[in-house]
Amino acid sequence: MAKTKVSSFICYGVNSAISIINSNRFNIRYIDIMKGGNAQKNKKLLNIIDDSIVTVLEKKDFLNKYPEKKTQGIAVNFYGQTINSFFPDFSTKSNICLLALDRIEDPQNFGQIIRTAECAGIDGILFSKHYSAPINNTVLQVSQGAFVNMNLYEITNLSQTIKQLKNENFWVIGLENGIKAKLWHEIEYTNRVIIVIGSEGKGIRKKILDSCDFISTIPMQGKINSLNVSAAVSAIAFERLRQIMEKNNGIHT
Amino acid sequence: MAKTKVSSFICYGVNSAISIINSNRFNIRYIDIMKGGNAQKNKKLLNIIDDSIVTVLEKKDFLNKYPEKKTQGIAVNFYGQTINSFFPDFSTKSNICLLALDRIEDPQNFGQIIRTAECAGIDGILFSKHYSAPINNTVLQVSQGAFVNMNLYEITNLSQTIKQLKNENFWVIGLENGIKAKLWHEIEYTNRVIIVIGSEGKGIRKKILDSCDFISTIPMQGKINSLNVSAAVSAIAFERLRQIMEKNNGIHT
Repeated sequence: MAKTKVSSFICYGVNSAISIINSNRFNIRYIDIMKGGNAQKNKKLLNIIDDSIVTVLEKKDFLNKYPEKKTQGIAVNFYGQTINSFFPDFSTKSNICLLALDRIEDPQNFGQIIRTAECAGIDGILFSKHYSAPINNTVLQVSQGAFVNMNLYEITNLSQTIKQLKNENFWVIGLENGIKAKLWHEIEYTNRVIIVIGSEGKGIRKKILDSCDFISTIPMQGKINSLNVSAAVSAIAFERLRQIMEKNNGIHT
Repeated sequence: MAKTKVSSFICYGVNSAISIINSNRFNIRYIDIMKGGNAQKNKKLLNIIDDSIVTVLEKKDFLNKYPEKKTQGIAVNFYGQTINSFFPDFSTKSNICLLALDRIEDPQNFGQIIRTAECAGIDGILFSKHYSAPINNTVLQVSQGAFVNMNLYEITNLSQTIKQLKNENFWVIGLENGIKAKLWHEIEYTNRVIIVIGSEGKGIRKKILDSCDFISTIPMQGKINSLNVSAAVSAIAFERLRQIMEKNNGIHT
């Protein structure tokens, strides 16, 4: 696994700001707030903010400094570890799901996957160090603060790490079309699973595909045959949640 | 319902180009292709393209004309009806699902919803004429060609149209948190349903919510409590597909 990284980032928006302020994972350098903007009126935010690091800027100056469109009148400059160095203790939970992203290239998709994964109770995201979108401001911004609560692991050799996790009783499920594929809802995602997601254009690399215990497919119903990768993650992550909920409640549909 | 609209649009990328060329819904004014770009090497595209409307531009000139990032070296200028005027004959299908978007404001979200809906076999999308993102180049681009195959209905009075469809035996399901809400997978989406999706910040308007037969909720598992609206559509649209597939196969999980 790669070494811990401490980098400096900037995020905009009330939700991201609240997540970063509330975390003990990041240190804030400074916060700029636009006079008369949404953030300045947000009581939830104002209650937790440390005034000593805040500068209130005139609207004109704020927009000049941050020409991006969607700031909600707040910019947070912070640093800290976005990437985890060690896996947590897996023995404490009965259902564990890790996503393994094999070369997701688009930072928008990476950010959306982090956001969806956090909402769906995914325990961590492994991503290949090479050929992947790096964790940058766009990724963090699109995740809407979800990166604060998500375990992110940058993996040098994804294939090898997946093999190691198989020894810790993880089942490995690749999301990909193929002759051996089963329908996405016919595979069990309870207990310990790794769901492997391939790159937008090229899918999962063969070496990793060979490590998969199951191949899961979401059959396209239309003509375009191109579900966005983050939409596919949403479909499968909430199918997992459904299975866990139904198992816990003893309800069978 | 609003009158048929004929507008001029521009889309980039191989997938969008193929969808537009293959459709009989749109007329192409011209196509610009970048010398040495991806599109110029794509045989599937070259096989169907009408050379008489194509201009091949030097890379420098193409990038100057289309400074957008992701063109794959092709720009299609076209016009036609993106919006349908009449509902199709609903009597021909046993399972019909319409999405009703109540004030989706972000064109990225709107485009993603069209794309996901097409892949998940949704039959049409109603969207409120007022307070919604209009169908523009961004919406069409993000949909990655899915708009060509999707029935899109711009509705002046969404609440009233939903009531009319209830008279045609549609069940109306609102996706929203609330005390009356059931878990998203405990609601049946087979047969005739309208799934109502509220705006990013404000949810579903009360008048429309009052028309809903069921309220469906996807409980958040993390701390950020903010699933992207297009990710929510993906979760519910593929849950519907799962139910239809299991019903058809008589398989019970």
